[in-house]
Amino acid sequence: MVNYPGGIASARKQNNQQDKTVKFGKRGMTFEAEINATNAYYLTHGLAVIHKKPTPIQIVKVDYPKRSRAKITEAYFRQASTTDYSGVYQGYYIDFEAKETQNKTRFPLKNFHDHQIEHMENVLNQNGIAFVLLHFTVLSRTFLLKASDLIPFYKEHKGQKSLPLAFIEDKGAEISKQLLPSIPYLELIHKLLGGDSHFKSTTK
Amino acid sequence: MVNYPGGIASARKQNNQQDKTVKFGKRGMTFEAEINATNAYYLTHGLAVIHKKPTPIQIVKVDYPKRSRAKITEAYFRQASTTDYSGVYQGYYIDFEAKETQNKTRFPLKNFHDHQIEHMENVLNQNGIAFVLLHFTVLSRTFLLKASDLIPFYKEHKGQKSLPLAFIEDKGAEISKQLLPSIPYLELIHKLLGGDSHFKSTTK
Repeated sequence: MVNYPGGIASARKQNNQQDKTVKFGKRGMTFEAEINATNAYYLTHGLAVIHKKPTPIQIVKVDYPKRSRAKITEAYFRQASTTDYSGVYQGYYIDFEAKETQNKTRFPLKNFHDHQIEHMENVLNQNGIAFVLLHFTVLSRTFLLKASDLIPFYKEHKGQKSLPLAFIEDKGAEISKQLLPSIPYLELIHKLLGGDSHFKSTTK
Repeated sequence: MVNYPGGIASARKQNNQQDKTVKFGKRGMTFEAEINATNAYYLTHGLAVIHKKPTPIQIVKVDYPKRSRAKITEAYFRQASTTDYSGVYQGYYIDFEAKETQNKTRFPLKNFHDHQIEHMENVLNQNGIAFVLLHFTVLSRTFLLKASDLIPFYKEHKGQKSLPLAFIEDKGAEISKQLLPSIPYLELIHKLLGGDSHFKSTTK
């Protein structure tokens, strides 16, 4: 259980469609809303089935009013033990976390929790595809970085430091903005599946 | 948004370890707790990474007390649009729903929602592995039924009827109880992957 300030905004965004109109960066949609829209596009076009997991909530009290639906009156945000997004793409298990920073030169590692790093390791050990989508809001640039590149860096720096932009540019793949889907990360996975044995076990 | 009575017990179970001591059937653990324990066993033994998704909650009001964590003071249960469990097993995407009935001769289809059936279809179209675990509490019998067997039956009967036990015995695979893991469903997947091209696309 944690004090989970990030979860609130996240949960509100998830639960309230109106929040999608909140402006940030230059594109008028939050990064999370863009990913959700991209996943919705992939789903309706039969390209992939990838969903955001609900925000984990610890429920303490529930009222059961007569002739009305149950109302939760006391609950708290919990820290997620896995990543936010998972699903299936052409038989492959897909698992990723999406984060953004206002920083222009580096991506702070505090955006990730030990549990999430451990989860990504577990996924890689099961030959799943794990990565992070990193969005630099001010630069308006988005990268896909494989978990196999993130994890060693994270462990070496004990969650204290940041990923330099140069490291992300070198190891990651930049996602070209589009109108629809706005964050076409599947294209990169497709490429990476073909050429990189570290991304996906070659035994499949 | 729905009145979601099943979600409350489910969410409490998920959030409160003490609820695992609730007795039912003859085994002292709820069906859900047994599946969670099985998944924990698979995870710690490096056999699979399969998690239960958090219960989806619509958050309406949050208090931010000073020097204390955020408190949700009004929220409601939402209907899940996917199945409860998903993850990765040796590179394969795994997706399932677990349900139980007090009935001795049939499994009511009202245990499943249209959204869940649609989700399972989408998963199959992406070559994922989708199934349901059906538990007859009074009989103390548990079956794995492939989504490819459930979906046509569900559609034919429009969510109105029940799966006869005989149908489940014929099409499904019974899971032998064990001490640990108590519901060893992976063994059945392993078998089914080997022999049944309808369960999993043979293109992989």
